[in-house]
Amino acid sequence: MLVVMKAHATEEEIRKVCERIEALGYRAHPIPGTQRTAIGITGNAGEVDIGSLESMPGVAECIPVSKPYKLVSRDVKEEDTIIRIPVRQPDGTTAETTIGGASVALIAGPCAIESYEQAMAVADCLRKAGVRLFRGGAYKPRTSPYSFQGLGEAGLKILAEVRERFGLGIVTEAVDNESLELVEQYADVIQIGARNMQNFSLLKRAGRARKPVLLKRGMSATLDEFLMAAEYILAEGNYQVILCERGVRTFSDFTRNTLDLAVIPAVKRRSHLPILVDPSHGTGRRHKVLPLSRAAVAVGADGLLVEVHPDPDRALSDGMQSLIPEEFLQLQQEVRLIAAVLNRTVN
Amino acid sequence: MLVVMKAHATEEEIRKVCERIEALGYRAHPIPGTQRTAIGITGNAGEVDIGSLESMPGVAECIPVSKPYKLVSRDVKEEDTIIRIPVRQPDGTTAETTIGGASVALIAGPCAIESYEQAMAVADCLRKAGVRLFRGGAYKPRTSPYSFQGLGEAGLKILAEVRERFGLGIVTEAVDNESLELVEQYADVIQIGARNMQNFSLLKRAGRARKPVLLKRGMSATLDEFLMAAEYILAEGNYQVILCERGVRTFSDFTRNTLDLAVIPAVKRRSHLPILVDPSHGTGRRHKVLPLSRAAVAVGADGLLVEVHPDPDRALSDGMQSLIPEEFLQLQQEVRLIAAVLNRTVN
Amino acid sequence: MLVVMKAHATEEEIRKVCERIEALGYRAHPIPGTQRTAIGITGNAGEVDIGSLESMPGVAECIPVSKPYKLVSRDVKEEDTIIRIPVRQPDGTTAETTIGGASVALIAGPCAIESYEQAMAVADCLRKAGVRLFRGGAYKPRTSPYSFQGLGEAGLKILAEVRERFGLGIVTEAVDNESLELVEQYADVIQIGARNMQNFSLLKRAGRARKPVLLKRGMSATLDEFLMAAEYILAEGNYQVILCERGVRTFSDFTRNTLDLAVIPAVKRRSHLPILVDPSHGTGRRHKVLPLSRAAVAVGADGLLVEVHPDPDRALSDGMQSLIPEEFLQLQQEVRLIAAVLNRTVN
Amino acid sequence: MLVVMKAHATEEEIRKVCERIEALGYRAHPIPGTQRTAIGITGNAGEVDIGSLESMPGVAECIPVSKPYKLVSRDVKEEDTIIRIPVRQPDGTTAETTIGGASVALIAGPCAIESYEQAMAVADCLRKAGVRLFRGGAYKPRTSPYSFQGLGEAGLKILAEVRERFGLGIVTEAVDNESLELVEQYADVIQIGARNMQNFSLLKRAGRARKPVLLKRGMSATLDEFLMAAEYILAEGNYQVILCERGVRTFSDFTRNTLDLAVIPAVKRRSHLPILVDPSHGTGRRHKVLPLSRAAVAVGADGLLVEVHPDPDRALSDGMQSLIPEEFLQLQQEVRLIAAVLNRTVN
Repeated sequence: MLVVMKAHATEEEIRKVCERIEALGYRAHPIPGTQRTAIGITGNAGEVDIGSLESMPGVAECIPVSKPYKLVSRDVKEEDTIIRIPVRQPDGTTAETTIGGASVALIAGPCAIESYEQAMAVADCLRKAGVRLFRGGAYKPRTSPYSFQGLGEAGLKILAEVRERFGLGIVTEAVDNESLELVEQYADVIQIGARNMQNFSLLKRAGRARKPVLLKRGMSATLDEFLMAAEYILAEGNYQVILCERGVRTFSDFTRNTLDLAVIPAVKRRSHLPILVDPSHGTGRRHKVLPLSRAAVAVGADGLLVEVHPDPDRALSDGMQSLIPEEFLQLQQEVRLIAAVLNRTVN
Repeated sequence: MLVVMKAHATEEEIRKVCERIEALGYRAHPIPGTQRTAIGITGNAGEVDIGSLESMPGVAECIPVSKPYKLVSRDVKEEDTIIRIPVRQPDGTTAETTIGGASVALIAGPCAIESYEQAMAVADCLRKAGVRLFRGGAYKPRTSPYSFQGLGEAGLKILAEVRERFGLGIVTEAVDNESLELVEQYADVIQIGARNMQNFSLLKRAGRARKPVLLKRGMSATLDEFLMAAEYILAEGNYQVILCERGVRTFSDFTRNTLDLAVIPAVKRRSHLPILVDPSHGTGRRHKVLPLSRAAVAVGADGLLVEVHPDPDRALSDGMQSLIPEEFLQLQQEVRLIAAVLNRTVN
Repeated sequence: MLVVMKAHATEEEIRKVCERIEALGYRAHPIPGTQRTAIGITGNAGEVDIGSLESMPGVAECIPVSKPYKLVSRDVKEEDTIIRIPVRQPDGTTAETTIGGASVALIAGPCAIESYEQAMAVADCLRKAGVRLFRGGAYKPRTSPYSFQGLGEAGLKILAEVRERFGLGIVTEAVDNESLELVEQYADVIQIGARNMQNFSLLKRAGRARKPVLLKRGMSATLDEFLMAAEYILAEGNYQVILCERGVRTFSDFTRNTLDLAVIPAVKRRSHLPILVDPSHGTGRRHKVLPLSRAAVAVGADGLLVEVHPDPDRALSDGMQSLIPEEFLQLQQEVRLIAAVLNRTVN
Repeated sequence: MLVVMKAHATEEEIRKVCERIEALGYRAHPIPGTQRTAIGITGNAGEVDIGSLESMPGVAECIPVSKPYKLVSRDVKEEDTIIRIPVRQPDGTTAETTIGGASVALIAGPCAIESYEQAMAVADCLRKAGVRLFRGGAYKPRTSPYSFQGLGEAGLKILAEVRERFGLGIVTEAVDNESLELVEQYADVIQIGARNMQNFSLLKRAGRARKPVLLKRGMSATLDEFLMAAEYILAEGNYQVILCERGVRTFSDFTRNTLDLAVIPAVKRRSHLPILVDPSHGTGRRHKVLPLSRAAVAVGADGLLVEVHPDPDRALSDGMQSLIPEEFLQLQQEVRLIAAVLNRTVN
């Protein structure tokens, strides 16, 4: 159920509708738009009694929402959501970078944080290239219990140092409630990986975090399941969600996953949330990262999540799909030109 | 790496090899067989120095294991693992039921525990039919945040009551570390659902539990990934793992999932662990549960996980795939006959 | 559109309805049932004017059929179709074997006919085991143009000799209109392979043949597409169609294909046509043929299509999935016991 | 097996090597490159005796080719194949258009030729937009036998008229040997559809045609199977093959197919053949054609196959995925800008 307020409804009117909703035992989610505010109602398994709401001052209409997702839907919020990420710079000022809207975000860094030296080397080079968001895993979900699982909190500390020295915003993955607690403290964006897309307990915890959440599509998630997973986060009150396509699992065996780029315009029609593409996991092959990055920006993605490693052949994880810094610079240059065709700039 | 002990190695010799392994910084997993004991070594990213182990008394040979999984492998343990589940009966005695080996286990019950009455009605009927293991969800991973998510601990208490009144062993799902803590307390078997098959944090926690773990195959998990997920549990020291095929996601749209029955003989060749089939989730259609149950037993499954609900049309979840008690009785009768062809009995 | 005749409609009345349908520019397909006759109408892109038909003597009702398939549907013919295959025996008599109904048919033989000696060796052994239908390819659709493509008409002649010497009915594949012409002459059942399931030109030609057609499901065919492909054959006037599940293509990589056994009860609900299972192509692994054959019969398949080769390691195609004769005998014995549970006998 | 000639080998030397190969019972395929000529040998099931070839004048080396495909491989021909299509213009001159190389080809037109008027209306508009190749089906492979199957030869005649009036080259599908005979006569490029990608009989016939062949990837074809299907055509002597990605079948259900754009760079690494993308079938949704067209060109495709219909809502087939002419003009404009980023022009 969705309550759409009149264009000139007052703050007071909005507050009173929310109170009434809560009094009825539901949860109210006011979502301000440029024209008017909509209020999503969640927690209603069955029917909400519309009558008492529709007659309240300032209410334009009550819309029963038949789609399984509500808060992520464009029905609730027509304008694109823009995620603002303030990052403290070495000089003490704060620089804000955004995801969504007119610019295309480049998030780059190694698959896993392996050491202080490795992290600083990549960060230095990316900073010089003008990159503003740094990715790198401190907690790595690995198929085998015997593979490198990440440095844990020590890795998070290295990431914090990357921010301090280079002013780069930090994007890193949380794999359970415990690590999310720490990631929330150290990072600027909390990543939820593909394998955890339907770890609903983790999604709910992320919904209570006060940092933006980057949610990757599960390996066999339908579009509805993907948006419903995001809905879990919004339903808990965290509206700063960034989606990310990273390839799905199919019979096709020449790439590690099959990058489903049509999901970008499909998400854009249904949802106001920004969506990125991860061409590194999406292909699993270094020489396919560049062409698929161009394609991702051309199809309308709001950004890229790219693995860069100073020495991919010695990477502790996913070296096969990491770019060397020189290749990343070429990628940056090419997607800048593609973005320009769509009247977008690259961050 | 795998250390195979001589047929007549003494307890003392085995203990000393384990101590040496731990002293080298690894973890030792002694696995007793009917003929001889093997000791799995985990925690070795790279090479283990074999020399010092191979010359110890009682050691037959050291085998480098190239497969990504070790402890779940038949290389480590040739005989089928039989999981023994002792269940306290209403009369105060303990009845042991088993999964794996010569008998075929039937685990039945509603998808979700909805109320005390519903649980008792199904349990009563199943007990009369001779069933010994009862399934029912207290924590339900649901695609939508607005769907019924289970009764939580209240549901677990109802399940404990089912055991107390009917002497049925309890199988129920844990969805995160917190619920696992509780499930371990109340239930006899801890279930890990398909969506959590690669929730490695949860797998590790289950590996430290002292109850058997029923691990469902993920919706797009390869056979290797499935066995590696089990390996996570064994690697933490819990060797009581039961696998379960519940259908995979494909283009085929007349069933909810595509039941991949060939995985049963495939697992049997590679692993000593027992494997069940869930024809309810595997098909998602009530009228397909019976034929696919027959097929599952015919292909060699060690048991079935079947949803039974007294009134499927009013079930709070998965009614479409639940059998009414009468249908379950027919299923029981038919799989008994099929099992007999394979010289197996039905529990 | 479907015209259902009254239970006691006369031959004359049926004929007249058919004439009216044809006069209206459509095609009439009278399908006699045990209770009453139904007449399918095809060739109507849009609406058929019901009025003039419904008032004719002997007509019970006119049913608009919304399903995309008509003639293959149980709406048109409630009873199972039983395909009767008369085979001339060495002693000059004719033995009729059937597919569909109470018995389970075993069709066995080598993947490809390689030589006179090979064919006779397998046929001799199968005949002794009581098998009545022999399979073997004279035309082999191969992924590579450089692989053995079959002996062509020379292979068909060897197959005819197999029938002459052993009284076995012959099932063999046609790959285009030219080979279908020849196969129709030499064989008892014309096989259309998975890769040609949507070769509509070939399906239409098979619909004009006067021999039964065995139609394999395409590698990525949905259930509707599979039934529609059969509809092509029936729509041309050939109602003797046998369906065959042979595995679909999925991400799952431990078998060559994923055998989708749930399709058997799904077809049975929708269609009157018999359906077989090919566990050899369906798994692509010799040691999985036996368990999956048991499962196929347990799920309700009307028969099996099994590859048997005297020396699989030297087979020119698909040796990896062929049974040796001894293994086939065991298969025959086990499926006989499973069939008995379903009150069926094995042919 | 591949014989690589020296850079300065004479015509005479090349001819003699070919003769020797043929004398040995194989087939020789001389493939001239800018640097040197390679000669593919086909028809060798087993080993070719290298000795006698390697010592011949002009021979640089003999390379055993382990890949399943040979003639389509870059090992055999390093430079991109450029297909040249001469089209007679209304003024009597001949205009050559190309596929492959520096330019990006736009092939547009209705899914099916429905009438003279429809075809001329679309052709007129496309010609004015500068398009040089016209697509439109006279033979339509349809899932249902009751759907519109195309106008057949009457449709081909309309297409010939389109060329005569507008000077557009004609691309149209053949569905069997009979229609291929006619298509070869009337059209400029013979299309083989996805459902016939492994109709080997049709591929061989296309290999004997003297017009270029546009081969679409099958719905569940791996990359190797796709290239092997092309190999069938080249092996018969027709080297003018254009590949086309049109989406594969997966679980993902918001588009009709999943467009696998990574196949473009994958083909480019392995093969010298040009490859197009069909975003109309690849998505099945009109509003996704434009963004996926941009992505296809950005990823490196050699052209697009786009459905355009003057009145999609009344189209006899595939209206849901056809663009109206205005949308096509926008597409043309946008892909032109994207192509420029890759230093390519749009035809």
